[in-house]
Amino acid sequence: MTIYELGETAIVNRIIKRLDIEFEDCAIMDLTDTEYLVATTDMFHRVTDFPVEMSAWQIGWMCAAATLSDIAAMGARPQGMLVSMGLPDIESAFVDSMIEGMDACVCRCGTAIIGGDTDSHQELTVCGTALGRVPKDRILRRRGVNVGDLVCVTGCPGMAGAGMAALGRGLTEQEIQDSIAVEKFFEPIPRIGDGLRLAESGAVTAMMDNSDGLALSLHQLAEINGCGFQIRADTLPVPPEPDGSLDLALYAGGDFELLFTVKASRLADACHACELTVIGEVTPEGVFLERGEGGEGGEGGTTEEIERRGYRSLMRSR
Amino acid sequence: MTIYELGETAIVNRIIKRLDIEFEDCAIMDLTDTEYLVATTDMFHRVTDFPVEMSAWQIGWMCAAATLSDIAAMGARPQGMLVSMGLPDIESAFVDSMIEGMDACVCRCGTAIIGGDTDSHQELTVCGTALGRVPKDRILRRRGVNVGDLVCVTGCPGMAGAGMAALGRGLTEQEIQDSIAVEKFFEPIPRIGDGLRLAESGAVTAMMDNSDGLALSLHQLAEINGCGFQIRADTLPVPPEPDGSLDLALYAGGDFELLFTVKASRLADACHACELTVIGEVTPEGVFLERGEGGEGGEGGTTEEIERRGYRSLMRSR
Repeated sequence: MTIYELGETAIVNRIIKRLDIEFEDCAIMDLTDTEYLVATTDMFHRVTDFPVEMSAWQIGWMCAAATLSDIAAMGARPQGMLVSMGLPDIESAFVDSMIEGMDACVCRCGTAIIGGDTDSHQELTVCGTALGRVPKDRILRRRGVNVGDLVCVTGCPGMAGAGMAALGRGLTEQEIQDSIAVEKFFEPIPRIGDGLRLAESGAVTAMMDNSDGLALSLHQLAEINGCGFQIRADTLPVPPEPDGSLDLALYAGGDFELLFTVKASRLADACHACELTVIGEVTPEGVFLERGEGGEGGEGGTTEEIERRGYRSLMRSR
Repeated sequence: MTIYELGETAIVNRIIKRLDIEFEDCAIMDLTDTEYLVATTDMFHRVTDFPVEMSAWQIGWMCAAATLSDIAAMGARPQGMLVSMGLPDIESAFVDSMIEGMDACVCRCGTAIIGGDTDSHQELTVCGTALGRVPKDRILRRRGVNVGDLVCVTGCPGMAGAGMAALGRGLTEQEIQDSIAVEKFFEPIPRIGDGLRLAESGAVTAMMDNSDGLALSLHQLAEINGCGFQIRADTLPVPPEPDGSLDLALYAGGDFELLFTVKASRLADACHACELTVIGEVTPEGVFLERGEGGEGGEGGTTEEIERRGYRSLMRSR
C-alpha cells in the first residue's frame, strides 16, 4: 500500500508508534532538574504550502511563525531557530527577502536564527526547527483535560481559511493588502507571549495550537484525554463576511492560535493572561456543536456532531 | 542574479553575514553555566543526495549519520533528533524501512528520534535536526588552531568518493555488498565516541567534520584561523585501488570523518582518544601538499598547492 492510500494521519501514527514518540506539538527533553527543552520541526514546500499571492518575505515569516507556534503551544520561551532550505535557481533577492521575513518573525518572538543548511532542489523547500525552554512545573501538554474544564481559544478560528477563500474570489492587489483575513493567513503571529502567560497562570490544564483546524484539534484532545467537548456555536468566534462561516471556523486549518482548557474556577486568571474566548466545555464523551437555545431546559436548540476532519496543510486541497 | 549563478558558498556566506551567525558545524547555545546545547540541521533530496543503488534503510541511516556527524564534530553528546519528511506517493514499506535505518543510526549514537513532521511532496525530502550537549570547557570549534599543531584525521578521506567511483563502474549487487568503500559511502558511522574522547582529552585545539572534502575543510579552517597547512602525501590515507586516488582523498566529499588539530606535545593523549592519522602540520599560511622527500634538507620532494574545491553534496556532479 502506498502512503497516500494510507493517508498522512495513518503514516504519522505508524511512525509515532514505531518510535514510541508522544503526540505533542513539541518533543520534550530534560534540560536540568527544573527545566525542559522543547523542540519542533516543520517542513514546507512552495506549491503545497504557499499561495502564489504570497511574497518571499511572507513565505519566510510564515515558515517561522508556524514552527514557533508549536513552542507557544507548550507555554515555552523560544531559544533559537534552525532553517534548512532546498533552493531552486531563483533570484537571490527572493532568498534575501525570505530570510528577512523569517528573521523578522523570529526576532518578534524574542529569539534568533542560529544556524541552518542549504541544498539545491527543484522546488523551494523550507524546514524550520525551533527550540524552547520551559520550567517543568509550567509546561502545557495536550494531556491534562478534566471534565468540567472550559474550552478556550485565542483569536478567531478559521481566519486563515477565510483568507484563502478571499483569495479564491480573485482579489485585487489592494484588496489583498486590505484584507484582515489574508493578513492573518499570510503573516500569522505566534502566540508566544500568550502561551507564556497562560503557562504561568496555573489555570490551564492542557493546550495545543489549532493549526490542523479546530475540529481536528478537538478530536485529538478528546482522544488523548478520553473526554468529549460541547462547543457552543453562539460563542464561537467566526471569521467576518463575506468569506467567513461557521464551517471555516470548525474545519479550516492554517491558523496558529492556541486551543486550551481551563479549570472553571480559574477562568479569571486565564483572562488576565491573554485575550480569549470561552467556546464550550469538557464533557465525558463526544465532540458536539450546540446551536441556539440548547442546554438544560433550553428550547429550540440543536446538537450536532463535529466531524473528525481538517487539514494539516491549507493548500493541499487546491 | 540567481542563486545558482552566485553559488552555494556565496549564498551561505550572505545568509551567515546577514544573520550574524558563526560558521560552525553546529549552532551553540547556553544551556547552563557549565554546558552548551548544540544543534544542527541537514536537508537531503532523493535525486541529488541518494544514489539509486541505495536502499530505503540506507537512505534513513545516511540522513541520520550526516546530521549526527556535526554533533560529533563539536565533541558533544547527542540528545535527540527531529526528522521532517516530504513524502511522494511511495510504498509505505519504503517509509517504514527508511525510519528503521534512521532509528538504527540514531540508537547506535546513543540517542533517539524524538519528533518530526510529514508533508506531501513530489520528491522524497528528508530534513534531520540533531541536538547535543557538551561541557563549555570541552567544546571543540573550528577556531583554535595554532601554528605548529599537528593535523589529524580519523578514517580514510575519500572513501565515500571511492564508493561512488566504484558504483560508476557498474558493480553487480554482490560487488556492491562486498565493497568497503560503498559501505562507508552508504552507511557512514558518525564519530560520536571519538569526538567525545577527543574533547575530553584536552589535546585538540580545533575540530570539524570533513563532509565537504578534506581540501575544502582545510581551506575553511585556514580562513577562520588565519593559518596555513602543510599536508604530507606520504602519510595521508588514500582509499584502496582500483577506485581510490590521492585526488579523491583531497577533493571528494561525503565522508563523515573528523578533521582536527592537536598540540604537538599532546599527541599521545589524542592517540589514546581514538584511532587517528597525523597528515601534516599547521603553518603560518597557504594550504600545501608535500610529496616525496620534501621538507628541510630533503631532496626530490615537491610542494603543490591544495585547491580550494570540494562539494557539499556528493551527488551534485551527477
